[in-house]
Amino acid sequence: MEFRDLLLGLVLVWIAAKLAGEAMERIGQTAVLGELLAGVIIGPGVLGLVHESQALHALAELGALILLFEVGLESDLSDLLRAGLQATLVALVGVAAPFAVGYAIMDWLGHPALLAVFVGATFTATSVGITARVLRDLGRLQDAAAKVVLGAAVVDDILGLIILAVVTGVAQTGSVSLATVGLLSGKAIAFLVVAILVGIRLAPALVRWIGRMQARGTLVVYSVVFAAALAAVADLMGLATIIGAFAAGLILATTERRAHIEEHIKPVADLLVPVFFVTVGMKVQPAMLNPFAESTQFSLAILLTAVAVVSKLVAGLAVYQRGVRRWPVAVGMVPRGEVGLIFAGVGLVAGVIAEDLYSALIVVVMLTTFAAPPWLKALYRGAP
Amino acid sequence: MEFRDLLLGLVLVWIAAKLAGEAMERIGQTAVLGELLAGVIIGPGVLGLVHESQALHALAELGALILLFEVGLESDLSDLLRAGLQATLVALVGVAAPFAVGYAIMDWLGHPALLAVFVGATFTATSVGITARVLRDLGRLQDAAAKVVLGAAVVDDILGLIILAVVTGVAQTGSVSLATVGLLSGKAIAFLVVAILVGIRLAPALVRWIGRMQARGTLVVYSVVFAAALAAVADLMGLATIIGAFAAGLILATTERRAHIEEHIKPVADLLVPVFFVTVGMKVQPAMLNPFAESTQFSLAILLTAVAVVSKLVAGLAVYQRGVRRWPVAVGMVPRGEVGLIFAGVGLVAGVIAEDLYSALIVVVMLTTFAAPPWLKALYRGAP
Repeated sequence: MEFRDLLLGLVLVWIAAKLAGEAMERIGQTAVLGELLAGVIIGPGVLGLVHESQALHALAELGALILLFEVGLESDLSDLLRAGLQATLVALVGVAAPFAVGYAIMDWLGHPALLAVFVGATFTATSVGITARVLRDLGRLQDAAAKVVLGAAVVDDILGLIILAVVTGVAQTGSVSLATVGLLSGKAIAFLVVAILVGIRLAPALVRWIGRMQARGTLVVYSVVFAAALAAVADLMGLATIIGAFAAGLILATTERRAHIEEHIKPVADLLVPVFFVTVGMKVQPAMLNPFAESTQFSLAILLTAVAVVSKLVAGLAVYQRGVRRWPVAVGMVPRGEVGLIFAGVGLVAGVIAEDLYSALIVVVMLTTFAAPPWLKALYRGAP
Repeated sequence: MEFRDLLLGLVLVWIAAKLAGEAMERIGQTAVLGELLAGVIIGPGVLGLVHESQALHALAELGALILLFEVGLESDLSDLLRAGLQATLVALVGVAAPFAVGYAIMDWLGHPALLAVFVGATFTATSVGITARVLRDLGRLQDAAAKVVLGAAVVDDILGLIILAVVTGVAQTGSVSLATVGLLSGKAIAFLVVAILVGIRLAPALVRWIGRMQARGTLVVYSVVFAAALAAVADLMGLATIIGAFAAGLILATTERRAHIEEHIKPVADLLVPVFFVTVGMKVQPAMLNPFAESTQFSLAILLTAVAVVSKLVAGLAVYQRGVRRWPVAVGMVPRGEVGLIFAGVGLVAGVIAEDLYSALIVVVMLTTFAAPPWLKALYRGAP
């Protein structure tokens, strides 16, 4: 009974994700960390309770798609335009420095260029969702520093997706030539620009047409159809599917039904996104990180985490405006989160990153995400 | 790129389902009919645009599970208790007569007992959701006849699930002995009684505990976990998974968070349930129903539809209360809808029903569902 196995697997995945996620939220962390840990524990690396079947894998991929669609839906293109030079500069430095340092260190350790590119790319990701939550909890969302971080986040998401598109293409062709990188960046930028410009013009008419339908559930189904269709187009162009889902979210965020779509996509995301995070965790092999084992990636994971944190703090140096505190901006950029996980996953599937390095990278993502909230809170303690 | 195929398949399934469903709603029919037709058209039988992959199949099965969970959530156990003798009698006759007639006619046509049992079982289903919508549109939901039909519906759903449990078990063992049938009925009834009695006692505490969680989406995830877990238990007992999902819905319908759960499960159902109906339609081979072909099941489909309609009308004879109009009750019981589809599907998967008979049965379900709304409207035309 194959369907029963899927049901039992899902029940375990969801219960583990919710319990661990709740525990993390209680200690002021993000639920995503708990879901990753839950995956490590129930996966083949520790308890071996759940294995990734084809159906579970498909649900996890749909989860990643819905996640990026939701991220796009919550981003505001006008925020991006308002973010201005200060936020853009922070985002650019926050992408360039970690990439350069990540690439350099792997190159220095004697790894091939393709692998070094993946590690660099994983380092570029920023997940300010976590930072935004901490700042909200502290009542600091109106601070000048908070506005810079949140503005930089939108720029960062877009830069990250372009890098991901390039990296995916590089993994497929296997070459890191300037021509390939140029072509792929061009395609990714062209896709985003064309999709967004055409989408923003057509979306209002489409949403009005959907509003005239009588059958139930029309809005949510067509929204997901839109995301899935753009994802498929991105894939056909040799880009990552999630760039299409993100573009679809950005476009629908400009329509009058945005709040309605967000509300209806939420329960779908609540069910599917944890499946993605748990299966990411399931691929981690904790044995490879055992500090007392002979062949260990433990020191590599610690080294990479330190590099990831320090290289991201450089973004704080890009703050030139008066009245914007440097440290909250720098620390706010540190958590790597979801996008970093997707980068590492693409590398694993493409065979560029081996399982032990993948495990180390997931640890980097988890530690950076774990470190940011208490650090930010400490920075604001006693501040006016 | 396997994930891209799934995305493209889903996009086609959703667009076809929504367009055909909308067209049906516009002519006063149910969207389900449109979704089935959409499946026939895009499936291998006609255009061959979409084929049922493993991932699509898993999504369709999850759709059937969510559908029955929703049906349970919308059912009211207190309605069932209030429905009283009149509604119970209508339901019993409305199940017994079609089963007997369906079995007899297939037996008379020389088919094996197991096949005759499946056809009889498919005939027992009632989908009063359609009737309820028509009565609501006509402003007749407070009629005595409407109350009898809606009360009978709940009894009918439960009887239908017990029959499905028995039929599933019979298909697995391959024997239709009195002992097997007795054992399976006993198991199904015991499962429902124990699940509901224990569930109703534990659910309020569980829902309160969930209410204390801070992470987002906790209620919807645990609700689906509950449905999936009971479905897996039912499956382990050799019953159909959907009986577990239905029981989970019935139980959660008694808690104070019922409306909240319904609201959050709706977008999930909106996305997954059409996948189920479309894949059901995809299995229909219209060529086998071509009236001009040599080897045709066309006359069988017409004969079975006539038998299915007439045998269900017998339920009207069970009306003994004064002031309850017989014909609206009888016609209100005619649509077979979702449950009939699931019966036929179980028979197909078990290899008891061949593809040509399956196609004929889907036609029976569609025609009975198609016939009821105009017939009901005609009955009420000019009525006080």
